[in-house]
Amino acid sequence: MAEPLKIALAGLGTVGVGVLDLLRENGEVLARRCGRPVEVVAVSARSRNKPRGDHDLSAWQWFDDPVEMARSADIDVLVELIGGEDGPARAAVEAALGAGRHVVTANKALLAHHGVALAKRAEEAGVALNFEAAVAGGIPIVKMMRESMAGNTARRVYGILNGTCNYILTKMEEEERDFEDVLKEAQELGYAEADPTFDIGGWDAAHKLAILTSLAFGCEISMDDVYVEGIDNITLADIRYARGLGYRVKLLAVAVDTGEGIEQRVHPTLVPIGSPIAEVHGVFNAVEVRGNFVDDVMLQGRGAGAHPTASSVVADLADIARGMIVPPLGLPVERLKPYRRARMRAHEGGYYVAMELWDKPGEVAAIAKIFADEGISIESIVQKGPAISRVVPLRKEERVRETAPFILITHDTLESAMRTALARIEAEGHCAGKPRMIRIERFR
Amino acid sequence: MAEPLKIALAGLGTVGVGVLDLLRENGEVLARRCGRPVEVVAVSARSRNKPRGDHDLSAWQWFDDPVEMARSADIDVLVELIGGEDGPARAAVEAALGAGRHVVTANKALLAHHGVALAKRAEEAGVALNFEAAVAGGIPIVKMMRESMAGNTARRVYGILNGTCNYILTKMEEEERDFEDVLKEAQELGYAEADPTFDIGGWDAAHKLAILTSLAFGCEISMDDVYVEGIDNITLADIRYARGLGYRVKLLAVAVDTGEGIEQRVHPTLVPIGSPIAEVHGVFNAVEVRGNFVDDVMLQGRGAGAHPTASSVVADLADIARGMIVPPLGLPVERLKPYRRARMRAHEGGYYVAMELWDKPGEVAAIAKIFADEGISIESIVQKGPAISRVVPLRKEERVRETAPFILITHDTLESAMRTALARIEAEGHCAGKPRMIRIERFR
Repeated sequence: MAEPLKIALAGLGTVGVGVLDLLRENGEVLARRCGRPVEVVAVSARSRNKPRGDHDLSAWQWFDDPVEMARSADIDVLVELIGGEDGPARAAVEAALGAGRHVVTANKALLAHHGVALAKRAEEAGVALNFEAAVAGGIPIVKMMRESMAGNTARRVYGILNGTCNYILTKMEEEERDFEDVLKEAQELGYAEADPTFDIGGWDAAHKLAILTSLAFGCEISMDDVYVEGIDNITLADIRYARGLGYRVKLLAVAVDTGEGIEQRVHPTLVPIGSPIAEVHGVFNAVEVRGNFVDDVMLQGRGAGAHPTASSVVADLADIARGMIVPPLGLPVERLKPYRRARMRAHEGGYYVAMELWDKPGEVAAIAKIFADEGISIESIVQKGPAISRVVPLRKEERVRETAPFILITHDTLESAMRTALARIEAEGHCAGKPRMIRIERFR
Repeated sequence: MAEPLKIALAGLGTVGVGVLDLLRENGEVLARRCGRPVEVVAVSARSRNKPRGDHDLSAWQWFDDPVEMARSADIDVLVELIGGEDGPARAAVEAALGAGRHVVTANKALLAHHGVALAKRAEEAGVALNFEAAVAGGIPIVKMMRESMAGNTARRVYGILNGTCNYILTKMEEEERDFEDVLKEAQELGYAEADPTFDIGGWDAAHKLAILTSLAFGCEISMDDVYVEGIDNITLADIRYARGLGYRVKLLAVAVDTGEGIEQRVHPTLVPIGSPIAEVHGVFNAVEVRGNFVDDVMLQGRGAGAHPTASSVVADLADIARGMIVPPLGLPVERLKPYRRARMRAHEGGYYVAMELWDKPGEVAAIAKIFADEGISIESIVQKGPAISRVVPLRKEERVRETAPFILITHDTLESAMRTALARIEAEGHCAGKPRMIRIERFR
């Protein structure tokens, strides 16, 4: 058997320990597959003394400084599991590439912000920059896009890229519970962070989408051009109405080449019940790509967790051990197209609109007229009898007025028309508070 | 840009023409991704004069004999799209490997029967033997198993591997139609062959499963050890009862390492409605693999068709163009384990049992006793009122007796116990005709 592939692990959090677990448990079969062993020789982390499962760190050379390790240790590959778009993660990756070492990373923020520059450095050094674990955890979507789709021009890519959000939305629907309630439980179970903004605000999914967009369309990565809405405004009522109309609410990340440019967006989305994406439950992730020859291919699996993520890190290492090196973004950087943005206001799709309509004659007609004025065609309407009494401050006296939930689904519509219509409904005072909308994907 | 990758196409049926379409339409982007063009230089087929879309064959060197082409043309890769486990397909592949040329093939029968021997030849010659298109058409399951799962030990692999069967079962359920009726329509639409035995008998899926089993468990391919049942005995009544019990009927191909050996089986299966595999509809295929680190990963897409299959053929070519060569079966042949078979009688799982029980006192009790005697535990029973009158020849006179459908679902049970119980029910004459069973997978 050939010389071992020597690796240095920077970062010994859950994924780092997962990689150590995997190499211990499956190291032999991995070596048989690669024709050579994959061996950890050096490690670095913030603290040397934290417990790391039952692994004994003294087996490996210790570095306080990951940059020093990347540069000077006798290694073939740096595995970067520190995280963060700048700081020691970026410095260590740059040092490794500068020293002509391969890099494997799980760092989506680093890639989303500096992916093109880092890919260029890797190509110049003739080394690999692999990042399967950065997008959708254990799901091998990067390899699929970079290699299996080589003969295709992509039309679109979309997916459920954040397990925390999918867990929350699944629980809300299955157990008929409110957002805040389920979020709290998810935090207690460790499925959501103490500060959940990055996940539930859609930012985690946006980072992953920015990377997928580049792989799908052969363009530069443009994280700043992702339109992002989180799930914190989704109510149990929305989920119930959506279900009644044949839809389920998912946080989707979508990139489409519209012809005008590329639309990148992350937002809560109504998807038809019975479509494969609607049946992705709990912490699972899924990505579907449409190529002009293969048509639709969908991948589904665990998008997080120490062991699934370690599986992706090690698959990247196996490719390097086997001598298989692909341009990090699928194309040499010099051949990437510049990112051309399609404006969100030019988006076309269906919309779910919900409002608390004042219960008085003429309001439904007024709404219908506003939609007609803006050229918006309505597919279906749900109106429930008045159920909610509201105290309305009006001309110094308080009056109690009633509202009724008023829900509608539109045919495909221009986003700008929808925004104008909703602004008019609010300005003309037809409903209590603001009317709300959720976009619909019907996957034609 | 580097030298082109020169390929010869043996077989110009629908997939061959699909490959020509793809190279024409996406050839430029493919070349940018691979760093070199992929060019057809020679072709061979049974007839030179059949129409091949709008492709002009005179652009390429013509060979009447694919073996001659594989051996003597100035090529890097033979693409074998002839089909068939022996004959010219096998001879051409052997000739190409013998001449040190890479091979890409879509031929599942060739791989299922001679895959190990051919992989050995490819390894000895230091060339690729790629066959993404041989299993599940456009779905990149071979690459996923061979590369992305490198760090995992597989526990099981299963899938819907035959689009014809899935189309028929989907139509039967959705449109409440009989098997024969839907089969006839599928033949008219070109989704089923004039002689549909290979598809509906489960043999096509069995070939694909035999290949997946080797990739999953690192063992030799053993097509002869696949237990095969087709869908031709599935009735609309089964589909209705299954749905009432929360299940859908699919033709599944399953390989499991039971500890005693490997169980390979293809048979109609009840899967829980709402599980991802139950939501794979129509001509789509899907494969799910469980690895000990990644857990479950599922791939879904088009399992047939000229363009999706061409996408897989070209992905294989792209790997070769990029210089990425993996042992054909994921492990060097000398490291493959011998195939060790788990006997089907030792299979454990749930069962759906359906029979036309004679409508007289004591029959239900008799059935319950037989199951109890064999240690089979019943999960649920559906009994419908007597509805069918049958003319029964008995002691030279004819008597009319009534039967009632009697359906039950068992907890996990040993296959041998189930077979004994059904034989006893038949021998003791408790039902009209034979009792029938369909296995259940609950995916725990």
